[in-house]
Amino acid sequence: MPVALAANQYGKSRVRLVKVARQGQHHEMTDLSIDITLSGEFADAYTAGDNRSVLPTDTMKNTVYALARKQPLGEVEEFCRRLADHFLTRNPQVAWTRIAATQNLWQRILVNGKPHEHAFLKAGGGCRTARITADRKRTEVRAGIADLTVLKTAGSAFEGYIHDEYTTLKETRDRLFGTIVTAEWLYQPGSHKFGSLWNSVRDTILEIFAGHDSRGVQHTLYAIGETILSRISEIVEIHLSMPNRHCLLVDLVPFGLDNPNEVFLPIDEPHGLIEATIRRTG
Amino acid sequence: MPVALAANQYGKSRVRLVKVARQGQHHEMTDLSIDITLSGEFADAYTAGDNRSVLPTDTMKNTVYALARKQPLGEVEEFCRRLADHFLTRNPQVAWTRIAATQNLWQRILVNGKPHEHAFLKAGGGCRTARITADRKRTEVRAGIADLTVLKTAGSAFEGYIHDEYTTLKETRDRLFGTIVTAEWLYQPGSHKFGSLWNSVRDTILEIFAGHDSRGVQHTLYAIGETILSRISEIVEIHLSMPNRHCLLVDLVPFGLDNPNEVFLPIDEPHGLIEATIRRTG
Amino acid sequence: MPVALAANQYGKSRVRLVKVARQGQHHEMTDLSIDITLSGEFADAYTAGDNRSVLPTDTMKNTVYALARKQPLGEVEEFCRRLADHFLTRNPQVAWTRIAATQNLWQRILVNGKPHEHAFLKAGGGCRTARITADRKRTEVRAGIADLTVLKTAGSAFEGYIHDEYTTLKETRDRLFGTIVTAEWLYQPGSHKFGSLWNSVRDTILEIFAGHDSRGVQHTLYAIGETILSRISEIVEIHLSMPNRHCLLVDLVPFGLDNPNEVFLPIDEPHGLIEATIRRTG
Amino acid sequence: MPVALAANQYGKSRVRLVKVARQGQHHEMTDLSIDITLSGEFADAYTAGDNRSVLPTDTMKNTVYALARKQPLGEVEEFCRRLADHFLTRNPQVAWTRIAATQNLWQRILVNGKPHEHAFLKAGGGCRTARITADRKRTEVRAGIADLTVLKTAGSAFEGYIHDEYTTLKETRDRLFGTIVTAEWLYQPGSHKFGSLWNSVRDTILEIFAGHDSRGVQHTLYAIGETILSRISEIVEIHLSMPNRHCLLVDLVPFGLDNPNEVFLPIDEPHGLIEATIRRTG
Repeated sequence: MPVALAANQYGKSRVRLVKVARQGQHHEMTDLSIDITLSGEFADAYTAGDNRSVLPTDTMKNTVYALARKQPLGEVEEFCRRLADHFLTRNPQVAWTRIAATQNLWQRILVNGKPHEHAFLKAGGGCRTARITADRKRTEVRAGIADLTVLKTAGSAFEGYIHDEYTTLKETRDRLFGTIVTAEWLYQPGSHKFGSLWNSVRDTILEIFAGHDSRGVQHTLYAIGETILSRISEIVEIHLSMPNRHCLLVDLVPFGLDNPNEVFLPIDEPHGLIEATIRRTG
Repeated sequence: MPVALAANQYGKSRVRLVKVARQGQHHEMTDLSIDITLSGEFADAYTAGDNRSVLPTDTMKNTVYALARKQPLGEVEEFCRRLADHFLTRNPQVAWTRIAATQNLWQRILVNGKPHEHAFLKAGGGCRTARITADRKRTEVRAGIADLTVLKTAGSAFEGYIHDEYTTLKETRDRLFGTIVTAEWLYQPGSHKFGSLWNSVRDTILEIFAGHDSRGVQHTLYAIGETILSRISEIVEIHLSMPNRHCLLVDLVPFGLDNPNEVFLPIDEPHGLIEATIRRTG
Repeated sequence: MPVALAANQYGKSRVRLVKVARQGQHHEMTDLSIDITLSGEFADAYTAGDNRSVLPTDTMKNTVYALARKQPLGEVEEFCRRLADHFLTRNPQVAWTRIAATQNLWQRILVNGKPHEHAFLKAGGGCRTARITADRKRTEVRAGIADLTVLKTAGSAFEGYIHDEYTTLKETRDRLFGTIVTAEWLYQPGSHKFGSLWNSVRDTILEIFAGHDSRGVQHTLYAIGETILSRISEIVEIHLSMPNRHCLLVDLVPFGLDNPNEVFLPIDEPHGLIEATIRRTG
Repeated sequence: MPVALAANQYGKSRVRLVKVARQGQHHEMTDLSIDITLSGEFADAYTAGDNRSVLPTDTMKNTVYALARKQPLGEVEEFCRRLADHFLTRNPQVAWTRIAATQNLWQRILVNGKPHEHAFLKAGGGCRTARITADRKRTEVRAGIADLTVLKTAGSAFEGYIHDEYTTLKETRDRLFGTIVTAEWLYQPGSHKFGSLWNSVRDTILEIFAGHDSRGVQHTLYAIGETILSRISEIVEIHLSMPNRHCLLVDLVPFGLDNPNEVFLPIDEPHGLIEATIRRTG
């Protein structure tokens, strides 16, 4: 019975790195977790246990630390691209590589209203992600945001949907709308200034989420994506994932009380999950 | 600037269900978590907030419970397929649907060596997964296993790999090999007896992992996949993901002690990650 | 063989509540998770299955929602105290009760620099906790902070410690110091203005952590506690827990590189754990 | 304003150890996570940053690995006791120490029904814990079990409880009863054969949980504790914690269906939490 290796990939995940850049007492600190993936001519390792083409994943990890030392990190997209270039250049057996990173964001501690030079507080408001996919012809640069948890207590309706025999949900013009936004977007080749672009995307997500007159999660998701594409020409397409983290209105009638949209039970499961990709077509 | 909805999907995730089937004092208990996804003609909900084509995710959740009541669950693949059929049949706007389930496995409590009729212990050894993808022409049935955590203390080498300037790993003929196997396989159309097939796959994974003379994670992964395909004709292809959960040999020389492969530090991160798809080619 | 119930307690945990207070378009939102514990004359439920003294935990949950509706929540300490009073007053069999709460903190989304009236972002920088312990004579009010993750890249030494046969750690005048502060403090009876007191504690933790010339985690922990007690007369004692979340300096010598305190590997485990209670003695 | 260090403790947490004992091809494997705590005359480290009395937590970690190499581990209680003895003997400044361990349990992989000599599967059914508390006069040995997840679908009632204005729960003679048992017990001085005693406790928990005609969680918890004390004379007292992990009967009436105790929604939160200590009084 003929059997074949149809696809393969391997690498090192969760390579954690903190790098400190010092200018006297003023320090910058970058906190990353990196996943490295290689794919290519590795069939002999699978089928015959012949490791001659295998770069050990331990070496990949070491490479992260060595490259982090040799140059300033720069933006996370830039550091990932250097790693991708390194593995492609040195390893002809590699057909493509993917370098993904999650950057934990820290803010300077404020002491008497003034940002401290070398003391940091882990910030809320989501983390920054990057993903470089490269083969010998093309490099795609994606950036993203994860764990951006938001909730609005007005401006959210859900009406006019299908009612079938299993529908019990009541239509509403006024519900709580909570979600944990995950976004990932593809940059045009040649893009740069990744840090300020990332901030623009994040600001836009928050602004549109807050101000949109929502008729449903889909409606707001699209408004966010459309606005980002209209404002930021470097972005080709964006994927948005917005779970609907429900806040259930508690029934207080058994206790002789009304509940005019005041008391809610937030639940983690089950949750709705709305996803879409919005793309520039021009 | 023209912008378009390039892809969309939505649904309900983490719909949890426990169903009890009773025959006198002898009970069967099934414990599932189900994710429902629909995709199709939903653009108006995104672009205009028009929900006329939207089946609420709350209704999807209700449907799980109603269908669970109406018929015996059967194997998890069968229940998921009924859900997929339901949503496709009733909703012409749906182009495709995906129903994924995770089944927590319980074993009967043994009292004086005898399985109890209605008391259960949450079992180790991984959980069972199923994934049905269906459009109006075709239904694909996939099953899987997740969280199968195994470790062997002999029969694992790693030698003959690339050494570059960043390689410090030592070659070894005798290392610990720990992994958490995730597998998912595609069944031939018309397959049935999903429960016994699943057990065969699980048994084969454990048997090959234990007995294989491993020259690397890739080597063992392939041996597992190849043996499964050779033994179980209903399986078309299988994807295997095997992180290398490292156990580092502790250096005891500073304390005047040797360490003849006895004392190890297991780490969760970083970890290797080896993945491949193995496919029948006949 | 005589056996006795030596201690008992029961209750409901993880009762989640979101309450919205609306003044036109301007909304306040409070997000709590509450644990209720009762102890007292419940022996018959244990020894005889006689539930006549048992208030169901489901009723405790309902009580949270009913009381949340009946009055403004106020500070989390005040709401917990109302719950404690309720259970003690209505249930003579209860000897003592403990109400613990975790408050997830949200900040208003800034749109064009202006705080939005009803859209919120889940904030970083720790969450707020409260714990009321009450019997028929006395009520103790404790407040706390959890998950306050901080890191400083200067101003931290560790020298002059014991060196025994198993000591390999190198003395240092310049290390990274990362921790996740958990604090809980006891208020003087009659304290109020819990919100502003909590902010003062949090600000002091951050200020002292940032500015302290640390000779060890113990040294900084004590400086934080001492400063809080010196500044805030309402606090009787404070317990601080500060794990030492190590950032290991990566050895780059094998790659022909130095590492002048730049490139670090942060690890989650193992971690140091330093704890102390600091008390006013006057 | 006088302030004092009222209590202090420090140590190393989550020190992970895998030890392999080899007899030819037949291997034993032990997988532990250890927490070490010391308390005593450490005030100068807190108040003055003087570390002369401080044994670094890094040294504690090294000590675990060195002691693991020097002798066979034995039962987890014995290894923890050796660690406690070591720290007390070498460090006069230490007043008391606590060594806590969690042992992950693995079972041998069965190949053709036969246990493999050196390949293991992570088992379900809870993990084993130990806790040694020792000062210069006394050593207390505690053992425990954690994460023992069980569920029974018959033999569980809850009736005759208090009904107040916030009670909506319906009395039942037939409900699902799911819990995650945590137990910890204190051994008589001089106890040994800890492995077989642990198995007896675990078997008794499962047997009584399965067979008990439960009138409430308290009732079953007490029956478990009482039986353990009556069977195992080495145990002085036992603490049991049994959350009530509710399975809610789904209301199918809106869909024209009954639900004769068949279809349930299991929830993680909120959950009841029942705890008690049962002690030998003879």
